[in-house]
Amino acid sequence: MLNPYRFFDPDEYVRKIAFELYQEVKGMPILSPHGHVNPSLLAYNEPFPDPTELIILPDHYIYRLLYSQGISMESLGIPARDGTEVEQDHRKIWKIFADHYYLFAGTPTGIWLNHELSEVFGIEENLDSENAMAIYDELSEKLKSEEFLPRRLFERFGIEVLTTTDGAVDSLEHHQKIQLSEWKGRVIPCFRPDAVIDIRRPDWNRQIEALSEASRIMINSFPSFIAALENRREFFKSMGAVSTDQGILSPYTNELDPPEVENIFQRALKWKSTEEDGYLFTAHMLMEMARMSIEDGMVMQIHPGSFRNHNQALFDRFGYDKGADIPVQTEYTRNLHPLLNKFGNDRRFTLVVFTLDESTYSRELAPLAGHYPAMKLGAPWWFHDSIQGMLRFREHVMETASIYNTVGFTDDTRAFPSIPARHDLSRRMDSNFLARMVARHTITMNQAKIMNMELAYKLAKRTYNL
Amino acid sequence: MLNPYRFFDPDEYVRKIAFELYQEVKGMPILSPHGHVNPSLLAYNEPFPDPTELIILPDHYIYRLLYSQGISMESLGIPARDGTEVEQDHRKIWKIFADHYYLFAGTPTGIWLNHELSEVFGIEENLDSENAMAIYDELSEKLKSEEFLPRRLFERFGIEVLTTTDGAVDSLEHHQKIQLSEWKGRVIPCFRPDAVIDIRRPDWNRQIEALSEASRIMINSFPSFIAALENRREFFKSMGAVSTDQGILSPYTNELDPPEVENIFQRALKWKSTEEDGYLFTAHMLMEMARMSIEDGMVMQIHPGSFRNHNQALFDRFGYDKGADIPVQTEYTRNLHPLLNKFGNDRRFTLVVFTLDESTYSRELAPLAGHYPAMKLGAPWWFHDSIQGMLRFREHVMETASIYNTVGFTDDTRAFPSIPARHDLSRRMDSNFLARMVARHTITMNQAKIMNMELAYKLAKRTYNL
Amino acid sequence: MLNPYRFFDPDEYVRKIAFELYQEVKGMPILSPHGHVNPSLLAYNEPFPDPTELIILPDHYIYRLLYSQGISMESLGIPARDGTEVEQDHRKIWKIFADHYYLFAGTPTGIWLNHELSEVFGIEENLDSENAMAIYDELSEKLKSEEFLPRRLFERFGIEVLTTTDGAVDSLEHHQKIQLSEWKGRVIPCFRPDAVIDIRRPDWNRQIEALSEASRIMINSFPSFIAALENRREFFKSMGAVSTDQGILSPYTNELDPPEVENIFQRALKWKSTEEDGYLFTAHMLMEMARMSIEDGMVMQIHPGSFRNHNQALFDRFGYDKGADIPVQTEYTRNLHPLLNKFGNDRRFTLVVFTLDESTYSRELAPLAGHYPAMKLGAPWWFHDSIQGMLRFREHVMETASIYNTVGFTDDTRAFPSIPARHDLSRRMDSNFLARMVARHTITMNQAKIMNMELAYKLAKRTYNL
Repeated sequence: MLNPYRFFDPDEYVRKIAFELYQEVKGMPILSPHGHVNPSLLAYNEPFPDPTELIILPDHYIYRLLYSQGISMESLGIPARDGTEVEQDHRKIWKIFADHYYLFAGTPTGIWLNHELSEVFGIEENLDSENAMAIYDELSEKLKSEEFLPRRLFERFGIEVLTTTDGAVDSLEHHQKIQLSEWKGRVIPCFRPDAVIDIRRPDWNRQIEALSEASRIMINSFPSFIAALENRREFFKSMGAVSTDQGILSPYTNELDPPEVENIFQRALKWKSTEEDGYLFTAHMLMEMARMSIEDGMVMQIHPGSFRNHNQALFDRFGYDKGADIPVQTEYTRNLHPLLNKFGNDRRFTLVVFTLDESTYSRELAPLAGHYPAMKLGAPWWFHDSIQGMLRFREHVMETASIYNTVGFTDDTRAFPSIPARHDLSRRMDSNFLARMVARHTITMNQAKIMNMELAYKLAKRTYNL
Repeated sequence: MLNPYRFFDPDEYVRKIAFELYQEVKGMPILSPHGHVNPSLLAYNEPFPDPTELIILPDHYIYRLLYSQGISMESLGIPARDGTEVEQDHRKIWKIFADHYYLFAGTPTGIWLNHELSEVFGIEENLDSENAMAIYDELSEKLKSEEFLPRRLFERFGIEVLTTTDGAVDSLEHHQKIQLSEWKGRVIPCFRPDAVIDIRRPDWNRQIEALSEASRIMINSFPSFIAALENRREFFKSMGAVSTDQGILSPYTNELDPPEVENIFQRALKWKSTEEDGYLFTAHMLMEMARMSIEDGMVMQIHPGSFRNHNQALFDRFGYDKGADIPVQTEYTRNLHPLLNKFGNDRRFTLVVFTLDESTYSRELAPLAGHYPAMKLGAPWWFHDSIQGMLRFREHVMETASIYNTVGFTDDTRAFPSIPARHDLSRRMDSNFLARMVARHTITMNQAKIMNMELAYKLAKRTYNL
Repeated sequence: MLNPYRFFDPDEYVRKIAFELYQEVKGMPILSPHGHVNPSLLAYNEPFPDPTELIILPDHYIYRLLYSQGISMESLGIPARDGTEVEQDHRKIWKIFADHYYLFAGTPTGIWLNHELSEVFGIEENLDSENAMAIYDELSEKLKSEEFLPRRLFERFGIEVLTTTDGAVDSLEHHQKIQLSEWKGRVIPCFRPDAVIDIRRPDWNRQIEALSEASRIMINSFPSFIAALENRREFFKSMGAVSTDQGILSPYTNELDPPEVENIFQRALKWKSTEEDGYLFTAHMLMEMARMSIEDGMVMQIHPGSFRNHNQALFDRFGYDKGADIPVQTEYTRNLHPLLNKFGNDRRFTLVVFTLDESTYSRELAPLAGHYPAMKLGAPWWFHDSIQGMLRFREHVMETASIYNTVGFTDDTRAFPSIPARHDLSRRMDSNFLARMVARHTITMNQAKIMNMELAYKLAKRTYNL
């Protein structure tokens, strides 16, 4: 079902070069330095319950598009917070999905699903209304077998390192369980302190309490807050973490005076912070996180520019991460100025910047990464983790920043079985991008091979010290 | 003169697929759900006076480019409001146009004109200084014949539905005349209330008077204004309208409290409104229009982001729509938030959003349309109704929103005989876009055929309930 | 080493057409209407000291990328303002450069360097660590010979006109020396008054003194300042200048009342100007410069949108133009409104606008240039003077503005021996761009040949009255 030359340029000459380049990297181990797979999967290593729970329910990429076409969240079985009954019959949900599978034709989700069904599960037909339930049964059967247990898939996928994303107060018990087990798979946490840094979250005070407990540091002042964070970072590092991550609306950075930041912190503790406070506090915390990264050596990642939970009614009923996060315009040159001025020349520091605003690729991000030693560009992210998105990223970034100021591919997935599909697509697109340059005599085949290896494996390995 | 494979990729493999796809859609009926053709043309069905009046005078796409190269509006016969004499000799104007026809090489206007001259009028030469007057004479001769009467062209073009754009106070007499005639062509109005909604227009009070008269509702308060609008919408609907349209500078939406909106409305009636009033009133009216759309089922369209009449001196002398409307940056994620939160989950509602700001395609518009059931994306508009513009639209939008959250092609033309040229170009570009995906094995030929039919015909049919 | 078909599309059909088009323009004389070559080179015509001083030290494009990869400015021999010792051994610097030459693979700098080494210096190998010093020696040897003297290279490069960039107070002594010599090369200045217009520069008062001296006009009021500028423009014009240039952060234009501007000017003279003053003064001076351009016929150029010296620590130690200028978002529709409204319809006026913000190409710049007779678009600039950058420029601009509202290629280089490489790449890219249109039957081969000649030579010749 899957053509071996898929996604390469139709031009015979380019295709041939691309295929040759791809052959050299397709089997390389997978480094997944940033993702959202639940580590409990690999800690407990239990069979996936059924195809709907494996493929549809955890993946807002899928039900976002179904929802846009008028299919209700309830009928897709997405659990509602207000107790509304939602579809419980996973076979029915699967049928709806199959009936609308045509919606995904040509989208990255469609490409990944095709790969997953064919390469991971050996399904040889295109999913549609007719074969929906037969495929469901075949998948269900397979999921029960040893061969499809999470750890077996991990190995079969050739994953060398899988990084999860974990809150600052997380006990990392699943990681602990994995490390204490006899299984040798390398699953490491990433320190994501958003919930304790965003003082405007309704549950912030509860988060701070949890942070106090987790760190055994009584948090009643900004310095004690910082001490608690440093304590947690140390713990994460001891558990194998090599990086931190922050999701922020704006990448504004700015250092406040100690009394200023203390005042804001105290207002927040008393539930009296303003929106402006939140904005300033986040800006200050980006500076603090950079400082800590220099001290403990963890790579700092930022993912700005998403207006979270844009659809209030949907959020009220179904909660976070339901496909209603919408990008906004994002500014980097002025916003990162304070941070890069203070830390950007420090070679101990690595800042990986992701974006959802493609207009900044050539205008701001490539020139910044093409100058500051500390700054690197993350892979095209989320909506842009796609054929055209990857192509635009390379075309807009590469000439100014070179590939050496980028960090390789990041799958950022919640959908465990989609990992090989995503890396395969990325490796194909990079091979094709380089093949185009070879075919235009912009680079030699030899240079292309070296660069392809960097993009598929080495850049991530070096950047994240894996 | 026109190569049958024109505009397809030069790659043989892609070209062959594109051509096959194109064959299936090229003869499909034309749905033109949004345009600016004057309905009097089809109401009176009189011969077009001459080539200059047919082709040059109504088309600011043409004289915009001539003007940019130093050719005066006067010499092109554009009527001046201040009584300045302008060229009256249409043969002279045609000669200037032909002398500068090289300017249009490779532009969409040039492509449409070539198609029009060749396919509609059977001219077998490229227009230039040499053959200018001979072609003028040939065209003049043809325009006198039965075969080139507007209704005959309408039929020959294969137009199934032609939508015009009509002000809220318009009597729709031409539509009435068409409907009462024996001719079966379907020409329907679209409700465009800009002139009565923009309280900052110098002639707004006069417009409100006209609206009072047209609706027979005395407008002295905001509720009576709304009642009058509802009355006109009902009238438009009774005349066949299926949609409304609004041209706005910013797509800011926001609901005001009743006293607030009443205050603004009263200030406007007394010629005392401020710029801020105008901004807030438009934002509120977008909410009202959405509410009415849900009630009466008409599709709501918005066309934001054009700084109208940028060239003041030109505007003072020649008025509206003279090629001096210039796009500005436009924001959708935050601006549409109130409207989409209130109405975006309502499946009775359809909001079609057009843009002139391509940087919003992948960043804001595709993610919004790829989530909210009510929101759909209009075709690439105006400057972007071009080979590269259509390609960029598909490449930036399709992977996130799929083709199913777009609405097919909209020609948006004032130039009646350019309609088939525009639809033909669009069908060629879509066939080629899909062929590229087939050639990369991203979709199958079968999927491509289904999608192509959607893009050429079905999406518009469904979206606008035609 | 350099493939004759390099940079053309791999598709055989396009490539053949592109090659044919390129053959017709590759040998045309070079017009370089905007650059930063030091005229003393051609005034004194002395041998270039060594390869490092010729190629590395003047080119921040090169050490920017090296610096981003952790190579210190000191080790590259960049002179420090604070007296820090930097590497003096040019052979060692060359070795570092060669060791990291792989970084430039696929970047425009890499393409230019390859061309330069091969075509200008006859080096037949790709530079690397192994051959680094042998190539250094070969280059050193060649630089000593007659054949590589600046004037000989100028002639060999086929340069018809070379424009330098010179401050308002510059004596133009090097230009004088060239003009008084027997050598016939045409090297002309361009009037760049940034240092006397930017009242916020720390050295502005010193610049004003220098301007007083140079113009022999005592500057103590705004009118005397304007008189001095007019005086200097006249002098520049007498020395052959055909254009002015301004680098500005924002292209905001706005005319102030005479008392207002006088107040700002007086505050500036007393070192009391505010940031707002600086912003308003620049906006007013853009209006004045346009007015003067109409009076003296010099073409006005603006280069907005660069946040200069973004890296403060680097600036403090190494000064201006060290690869740390980063683009910011730039707005043209509203900002240029006052200027274009006052002068944009005047056919005596030419305003050439460059940008670093590609999102404005299709949204603002092409529509503006496609309407106003005075406005033309400069070539893709700086980071965008690249294969993908040129392609994006043409694709985003051409359909709306046509090629006739653009001004041909501008190399903008500080690196004298890179001039032919840059023009060659541009001519190849334009040939290829036109070939693609021919291959799609969008334009005829004949049209392509005419357009190619315009892009390679005629547009610059006409625009700058050369």
